Amino acid sequence: MGRLVMKFGGTSVANVDRIRNVARHVEREVKAGNQVAVVVSAMAGTTNQLVEWCKQAAPMHDAREYDAVVATGEQITAGLLAIVLQEIGIPARSWSGWQIPIETDGVHSAARMTNINGAEILKRMEQGQVAVIAGFQGIGPDKRITTLGRGGSDTSAVAVAAALKASCDIYTDVDGVYTADPRIVTGARKLDKISYEEMLEQASLGAKVLHLRSVELAMVYNVPLQVRSSFEAPDSPNQNKPDGTGPGTIVCQEEKSMEQHVVSGIAYSRDEAKISLRKVKDKPGVSAGVFGPLAEADISVDMIVQNVSADGAVADITFTLPRKDLRKAIDVLEKLKDQIGFQDITHSADVAKVSVVGIGMRSHAGVASKMFKSLADKGINIQAITTSEIKVSVLIDEAYTELAVRALHTAYGLDKA
Amino acid sequence: MGRLVMKFGGTSVANVDRIRNVARHVEREVKAGNQVAVVVSAMAGTTNQLVEWCKQAAPMHDAREYDAVVATGEQITAGLLAIVLQEIGIPARSWSGWQIPIETDGVHSAARMTNINGAEILKRMEQGQVAVIAGFQGIGPDKRITTLGRGGSDTSAVAVAAALKASCDIYTDVDGVYTADPRIVTGARKLDKISYEEMLEQASLGAKVLHLRSVELAMVYNVPLQVRSSFEAPDSPNQNKPDGTGPGTIVCQEEKSMEQHVVSGIAYSRDEAKISLRKVKDKPGVSAGVFGPLAEADISVDMIVQNVSADGAVADITFTLPRKDLRKAIDVLEKLKDQIGFQDITHSADVAKVSVVGIGMRSHAGVASKMFKSLADKGINIQAITTSEIKVSVLIDEAYTELAVRALHTAYGLDKA
Repeated sequence: MGRLVMKFGGTSVANVDRIRNVARHVEREVKAGNQVAVVVSAMAGTTNQLVEWCKQAAPMHDAREYDAVVATGEQITAGLLAIVLQEIGIPARSWSGWQIPIETDGVHSAARMTNINGAEILKRMEQGQVAVIAGFQGIGPDKRITTLGRGGSDTSAVAVAAALKASCDIYTDVDGVYTADPRIVTGARKLDKISYEEMLEQASLGAKVLHLRSVELAMVYNVPLQVRSSFEAPDSPNQNKPDGTGPGTIVCQEEKSMEQHVVSGIAYSRDEAKISLRKVKDKPGVSAGVFGPLAEADISVDMIVQNVSADGAVADITFTLPRKDLRKAIDVLEKLKDQIGFQDITHSADVAKVSVVGIGMRSHAGVASKMFKSLADKGINIQAITTSEIKVSVLIDEAYTELAVRALHTAYGLDKA
Repeated sequence: MGRLVMKFGGTSVANVDRIRNVARHVEREVKAGNQVAVVVSAMAGTTNQLVEWCKQAAPMHDAREYDAVVATGEQITAGLLAIVLQEIGIPARSWSGWQIPIETDGVHSAARMTNINGAEILKRMEQGQVAVIAGFQGIGPDKRITTLGRGGSDTSAVAVAAALKASCDIYTDVDGVYTADPRIVTGARKLDKISYEEMLEQASLGAKVLHLRSVELAMVYNVPLQVRSSFEAPDSPNQNKPDGTGPGTIVCQEEKSMEQHVVSGIAYSRDEAKISLRKVKDKPGVSAGVFGPLAEADISVDMIVQNVSADGAVADITFTLPRKDLRKAIDVLEKLKDQIGFQDITHSADVAKVSVVGIGMRSHAGVASKMFKSLADKGINIQAITTSEIKVSVLIDEAYTELAVRALHTAYGLDKA
């Protein structure tokens, strides 16, 4: 028994029958004595249709109007789920973002929540009413509807859980967080628990399970998250247990009882590109000259490698960036060619980033060198390296992605027994 | 130049291309120097889809949730039209009912507007911004979204026009009000002007051009209405003129300059049914005994005919009611058979009501007798009659509907020259 926010994504509420399935998950938690709020996404396909209409109306359009149009998707799901819950005898009502209110800043289409007044919802939850909340939206300082950007319903759910001091179960089309993408690594194992820090690295390194901002928010407010499947039968015996474990993967603070793994998972991302500037005149301020203008153009640079020539006069600078920004970055740099002072620019979109993640790295030496050796054994060349306290990432030829992920999964002992 | 509310229904905004056409109508009025507010319906088909989802969720559902779901249709259109207007250089923003606010009573799904605060919209209209308003909706005393019931966008538009002291153009798929249904009477003529009273009778007698409540409201607040076509080219020369005439039909207060017609139109309705109670014991209170229980069951009785037997002991009572309520009415009456005291009950759904409407009747004798004679000449039997100051209605066999409408259209000199 406790207070629980349950979040269901677009595939889980794609039609009225699936919404009925969601209602049975909610019913189970209510009958177990929990006070429940549900955060829902738009029915799968709805948001795309609404976005498409906005684009047809005008390719460049007022973000405030876009928000007013697109936020309706979640409002529809919330109303329908409330109806279905009432039908099976569970008191429920729907809430739009502006009704709660979920206050946000004024950055339409990519707003950030600033305050949630959970008092009214909480009062009703204590009286047994389920709050069905339209995700992905709020109300801005201009009293107009804002949206949080795509994937934002995860973030809504965590923020509501923080405001209500509740835990948060994220229902999705996978049943948890795995040591690697199960579509690539057949021996991948589902993790029972993972720390916020590791989940954060996984999310930022390309794992699609949770939206990055939702994990950040959960970590800051210490909201226990669970990633679990909405397609498992609602009456399956494999449900949340009083000790806080459940059928999915719990994302929470690092604790002693946690499985003592050095590496918790292998992540990869194909959304990478690489740019090299050849024979850059090596003088003070050259890095700022290259990366300042890119930052101003809203391009996030990730890995950076710089090799200085034997005489120290010129350097080669190589860096990675999101593949979608490659064209824009080259345009920016070509214009600055004389100012920066380089001879040549080359680029490649055929690269991938593979990462090993684990809080155990902090206290274990040799994690990185094991990675490099495993890849070398398979003949995979490393083009760049970055490290943080709990992850090591390498850039490789994209063609070797699957091979690298499988080799590392085995090397760190993650394969199923 | 003036202040104008333009209303566009579901067919006129059925897709983004049609919304672009609507924007050009708005552009024309803005360029003519008008301050403009636009009231829009949901894109054709959208409301039906939303209603269908609610029914799938539960056949009997919470009207508050139904409203939250169904009101999204108009919000989508409002946002899209605002985007399209901005794209062609016209400042515009969308408004949901709760944002204005349009306050209503708490009768969800069939709410009545109680107050519209037009101050903010008016301020912006004076600055040149077009207000694009989601029709059919408001906010109730419970701070939840309400809807006005189907067809309510006409009523929204008139109420907004009343609040803004504006005139109101209702764009629809016909180009005005005709002397009779042009699908039946090839010689039917479009009227330039018609009085509120006549339009009200037409609307209540089966003409589908305007929603009854919208005409009532226009009459009470003296809002000049125009019914006109949204499919006429926006740049057609046939547009609103400074003298208040326009391409459609103006609905306004009766005035001397108005065409001095005795009869302005012939209306008909097939949504009728007839019930006869045979040999009712004629005693004081018998009418109340019959019609009281029907009123309690929410059944509107229209025409009533009572024939008392020669000895005055028993009567036959015949009355008409909406065809959809026939089954329910018979159930109510069968249960009260002994209490009311009648011998037999008969019914028929094969009846139609045909009406002649005209403010000229007030000062012209012989309108009704001309009607009865015209129908007799065609061999059409009259089953019941009702009259008001400005209309005469008769109940006839449904098979003769077209014949009757055409005969009357000719008899009153309404055919095109």
